[in-house]
Amino acid sequence: MSYLIICGTNRESSVSRVLSGIYQELLAARGIKAEIIDLAELPQDFIASALYENSGKNASFNVYRQKMLQAQKYVFIVPEYNGSFPGVLKAFIDGLKFPDTFPDKKCALVGLSSGVQGAGLALSHLTDIFNYCGMNVLALKPKLARIEDNMTAEEIDNDLYKELLEQQVEKLIKF
Amino acid sequence: MSYLIICGTNRESSVSRVLSGIYQELLAARGIKAEIIDLAELPQDFIASALYENSGKNASFNVYRQKMLQAQKYVFIVPEYNGSFPGVLKAFIDGLKFPDTFPDKKCALVGLSSGVQGAGLALSHLTDIFNYCGMNVLALKPKLARIEDNMTAEEIDNDLYKELLEQQVEKLIKF
Amino acid sequence: MSYLIICGTNRESSVSRVLSGIYQELLAARGIKAEIIDLAELPQDFIASALYENSGKNASFNVYRQKMLQAQKYVFIVPEYNGSFPGVLKAFIDGLKFPDTFPDKKCALVGLSSGVQGAGLALSHLTDIFNYCGMNVLALKPKLARIEDNMTAEEIDNDLYKELLEQQVEKLIKF
Amino acid sequence: MSYLIICGTNRESSVSRVLSGIYQELLAARGIKAEIIDLAELPQDFIASALYENSGKNASFNVYRQKMLQAQKYVFIVPEYNGSFPGVLKAFIDGLKFPDTFPDKKCALVGLSSGVQGAGLALSHLTDIFNYCGMNVLALKPKLARIEDNMTAEEIDNDLYKELLEQQVEKLIKF
Repeated sequence: MSYLIICGTNRESSVSRVLSGIYQELLAARGIKAEIIDLAELPQDFIASALYENSGKNASFNVYRQKMLQAQKYVFIVPEYNGSFPGVLKAFIDGLKFPDTFPDKKCALVGLSSGVQGAGLALSHLTDIFNYCGMNVLALKPKLARIEDNMTAEEIDNDLYKELLEQQVEKLIKF
Repeated sequence: MSYLIICGTNRESSVSRVLSGIYQELLAARGIKAEIIDLAELPQDFIASALYENSGKNASFNVYRQKMLQAQKYVFIVPEYNGSFPGVLKAFIDGLKFPDTFPDKKCALVGLSSGVQGAGLALSHLTDIFNYCGMNVLALKPKLARIEDNMTAEEIDNDLYKELLEQQVEKLIKF
Repeated sequence: MSYLIICGTNRESSVSRVLSGIYQELLAARGIKAEIIDLAELPQDFIASALYENSGKNASFNVYRQKMLQAQKYVFIVPEYNGSFPGVLKAFIDGLKFPDTFPDKKCALVGLSSGVQGAGLALSHLTDIFNYCGMNVLALKPKLARIEDNMTAEEIDNDLYKELLEQQVEKLIKF
Repeated sequence: MSYLIICGTNRESSVSRVLSGIYQELLAARGIKAEIIDLAELPQDFIASALYENSGKNASFNVYRQKMLQAQKYVFIVPEYNGSFPGVLKAFIDGLKFPDTFPDKKCALVGLSSGVQGAGLALSHLTDIFNYCGMNVLALKPKLARIEDNMTAEEIDNDLYKELLEQQVEKLIKF
C-alpha cells in the first residue's frame, strides 16, 4: 500500500509544506513511508506544456504524473486561497492521466487557512472533484483555521488540531 | 459600464473561446462593447512568475490583471474539467489584485461540458469563490451540456441554449 | 419594496429568532418595515398537508406561502444543523409556489452556529438552491460562529459581527 | 452487516419508492437483506414532535431513529426538489441521535430528477452533510436524469442507469 502526500500549493516554503512534513511523520510513526509531492517542484510552465494536447508529453511533469498514477492512498494538504483550493492544485489534477489515476482509490484532506474558515469550502469543492474522478474521500477533514496562530516554525501548537490529525491518520489507514 | 468576457481555459482554440465570441456578439447587439480575455494568452509560467511573492511583478500578466481590476461586469465561460472549473481559471483568479478586484461587482457564469452535467458543480464552486471575493453572481447560470453535439464550428445549434444566453445577457445588463 | 425576514428554524425561542428581531431593527433604522416569518409558526404537519399533491391546500400554510410570493427582498437567518441548514427551512421552500415565488428577486443570507464554521456550507447550499429558483443572492453572507459566546440575551456582543450585519443591510438595500 | 435503504421523500407513491425497491432487489441478488425506510411513513408532525427539545420523545419516530442508529451501511435514494434534496430528508437527519448515528459508517447515494441534472447538487450537499456527521460517502453517485423517460412503472429502462447501479452496489459491498 503506497501513500503520497501532496502539498497543495506551489508557493515557496509554504506552511502547507511544513504540515506535509508533519503528516509524513504521523504516518512514519505507524510504519508507513510516504513521499511528499510539493507542487513548488513542478515545471513552472506545466499549465501549457503538460495539459490538453501536451498531456503526458512533459518529461519533468511526467515524473509526478507517474507517481500519482501508482500511489494507492493520498493525503492532500490544502491551503485556502480566495475561498477555495489553490488553482495550481486543480491544474495539477487536470494534468494527470484520466481516467486511470484515481478510481477506487482513497484519500484524506486537510484544510488550513490564515482566516477562520479552515478551507471548509475548499475541501467541499475538492471532495466533489475527487468523487467525480471515482476516488473515495475520508469523511474526517480537519479544518485548521488561523494556522499561523496555531503553529511554531516546525510544529503544531494546538492540541485539538494535533488530535484531529492523529484521528485522521488512523482512519485513513483503515479506510 | 465596462464588460469583460473571460474564456475560462488556456486550451488552444477551445470551444469556450468560440462561445466567448458568441457572447461578445450578444452584448454587441445590445450596444455593449466587451473585450475577451482568453486564458490561452497568459504567460505560460504565470503560476510561478505572477503569484504570491511575485504578485504584481509580471508585466505581461499585469496587463490582464489591470483589465480585471478596471472592469465592472464580467462573463465567465467555464468548461467542465474533472467535475469542476479548469485549474488555470482559479490560478488566474489567485493572481489578481486582492481584495480590490471584485468587491460589489457583478458577473454572469456560463457552463459547458462534453458530458451531461453542463459544469453544474463548476458553477457552484465558482459562485462560492466569487461570493467570497465580494462579487455578486447572477442566479441564471446556463449549463450547456453535450456542447459538441449542440454547436457547429461557429454557432450554437440548440434553441434552448440560445434562449438561455439571451435571457442571461438581458438579466446581466439590469443586474 | 417589501421585505421579509425568515427565521430559518422551527425550534422554539431560537437564537435565530432573536437575530431576526435584531435584523428587523437594522432595517427599521433605515426606514424599512420588514415582517418576520418564524418557521416555528408553521402548521406542525405541513410537510404532509402542504406539499406535493396538497400543495396550496393548507389554509394556515398558505398565509406564509402568500407572503413569500408577494415579498420582493428576503433575509434568511440560517442556523447550522448537521453541517447545513435546518431541514425544515428546505421543506418550507419545497411548499412554496413554484416557479413563481423567487425569480429575479433578491436575498441576503446570515449564518450562525454554536461551533466554529458559522454555517458556511449551509449558506453555500442555500445559494445553490436560490440560484436554481432564479433568485439572486447577495455575495456578503456573514458567518456568525460561536454565536452563544457572542450574544447576550437580546444583543450581539461582537463588533465585527455587528459591522458585518450593518454592511449587509446597506448592500441589500442597494442590491 | 446490516443495510438500510432510505427513500428520501415523503411524497406518496414516489418514483424514489420504486427505485428503493429496485435497489433492494439488487442487494438481495447478492445475498444482502436490506429494509426500506420510506419517509412517507414518518409521523406527519415529526418536525415539531421529534426534534430539538422533543428529540427522542416521539415513539413512532423513534422506531426509525433506532433503525438508523443500528444500521451499518445506507443507501439514500434522493430526488431533486428545488435544486437540492427534499427538505424532509434533512429534517429526518436532524431528528436522528447525534453524534452516534453516522460516525465511521458508509453510504451510497443515488440521485434522480425529472430534469436534466440528476440531482447532482443535491448529492454534493448531502455528501457535505454526511461527511460532517462522520460518515464516508461512496464516490460513485449515479445521477438518474429525466427519470420518468427512463422508467416503466416498475423498472428502469436505460442500460447505462442499470449498469451504474450494479457498479454502485458492488462498490458499496466492498466499501
